[in-house]
Amino acid sequence: MGKNMIQDIIRKTRTVRKFQEEMKISQETLLGLIDLARLGGSARNCQPLCYMLITDSEQCEKIFPLLGWAGYLSDWPGPEPGERPVAYILCLLDTKRCKGPENEVYIDLGIASQNILLGAAERGIFGCRIGAFSKDAVGRSLALGNRYKPLLVLALGYPAEEVVLEKMEQDGDIRYWRDADSVHHVPKRQLSDIILEPGS
Amino acid sequence: MGKNMIQDIIRKTRTVRKFQEEMKISQETLLGLIDLARLGGSARNCQPLCYMLITDSEQCEKIFPLLGWAGYLSDWPGPEPGERPVAYILCLLDTKRCKGPENEVYIDLGIASQNILLGAAERGIFGCRIGAFSKDAVGRSLALGNRYKPLLVLALGYPAEEVVLEKMEQDGDIRYWRDADSVHHVPKRQLSDIILEPGS
Repeated sequence: MGKNMIQDIIRKTRTVRKFQEEMKISQETLLGLIDLARLGGSARNCQPLCYMLITDSEQCEKIFPLLGWAGYLSDWPGPEPGERPVAYILCLLDTKRCKGPENEVYIDLGIASQNILLGAAERGIFGCRIGAFSKDAVGRSLALGNRYKPLLVLALGYPAEEVVLEKMEQDGDIRYWRDADSVHHVPKRQLSDIILEPGS
Repeated sequence: MGKNMIQDIIRKTRTVRKFQEEMKISQETLLGLIDLARLGGSARNCQPLCYMLITDSEQCEKIFPLLGWAGYLSDWPGPEPGERPVAYILCLLDTKRCKGPENEVYIDLGIASQNILLGAAERGIFGCRIGAFSKDAVGRSLALGNRYKPLLVLALGYPAEEVVLEKMEQDGDIRYWRDADSVHHVPKRQLSDIILEPGS
């Protein structure tokens, strides 16, 4: 492996919200991605996260309207039919397996979801982390018991939009935007702007 | 890039707590790792995390006793002189850049720290996420202002121990252990044990 493979794939792994809905993802691929989540580190080694796959089109249609899309694109209600996600991985907390404070669960969730999205990008699959949804409505829709608490939805598919990173001025505007050609631009803080010297 | 590069590097990226202290890590490499953290996704695109590098041996010696090591190895107080980390990346919250709830910050922290550790593993460098430390003591030691809140310490170095994953029985013991040859064993839940069917 070259020295910058990880950098290349991290750079490529951008949030995508429009998909080629006719291109499905196999169950085997999705299970492989969850296996990457499984292999991530976990605080106290609790491994309290579990995962539900939603791929059936009827179930996808039930989940879709429960999700909040792209807070800063206020005139865009989310992807239209034909460009919607083809699969969702619902990340849940198994409360029976959780021993530590809540913060640790969310660190685990960041690790796990990043593993999934990096492995997906390697296969040309992209996605979006969605935390803005009614946990109760999703729980009811999937007939979840009390033991499991929905934390995050990963919406996945083959991409139908281009996403580019933009340099952000120090403490500039953090809001992403779409240009006239529907290219999605994401401002990123620069390295010098996130390095702190002792005594700061 | 092959189809399983990400899986290989994720599998390789294990928590290591004993290092070859004579092998230092260059400032350039460390800044490159923080750049990987920078490139990770961030809720609301806030990018509220910042990073302080601790590499100077005097500073490392001041930080080391403030850290908690390997909760389950109760008779092991942490790495001895000669096998201690050669660098620390302190991950902090810049409270002036934080717009969302705390949970989102910790997801960002999982993503960022995973990017760092994956990029490190690609270079033969390993580390340990340490959340068990006195935030106040570390803040005082580094003369941090109120604006910045220490969240996590990444201890880094070239490894001086072997870590292997072990299959864990369903809801078996989550505690890692060291064997007589000082090999570190980490039980991992199996895939079938973390996949949930609707109606669970």
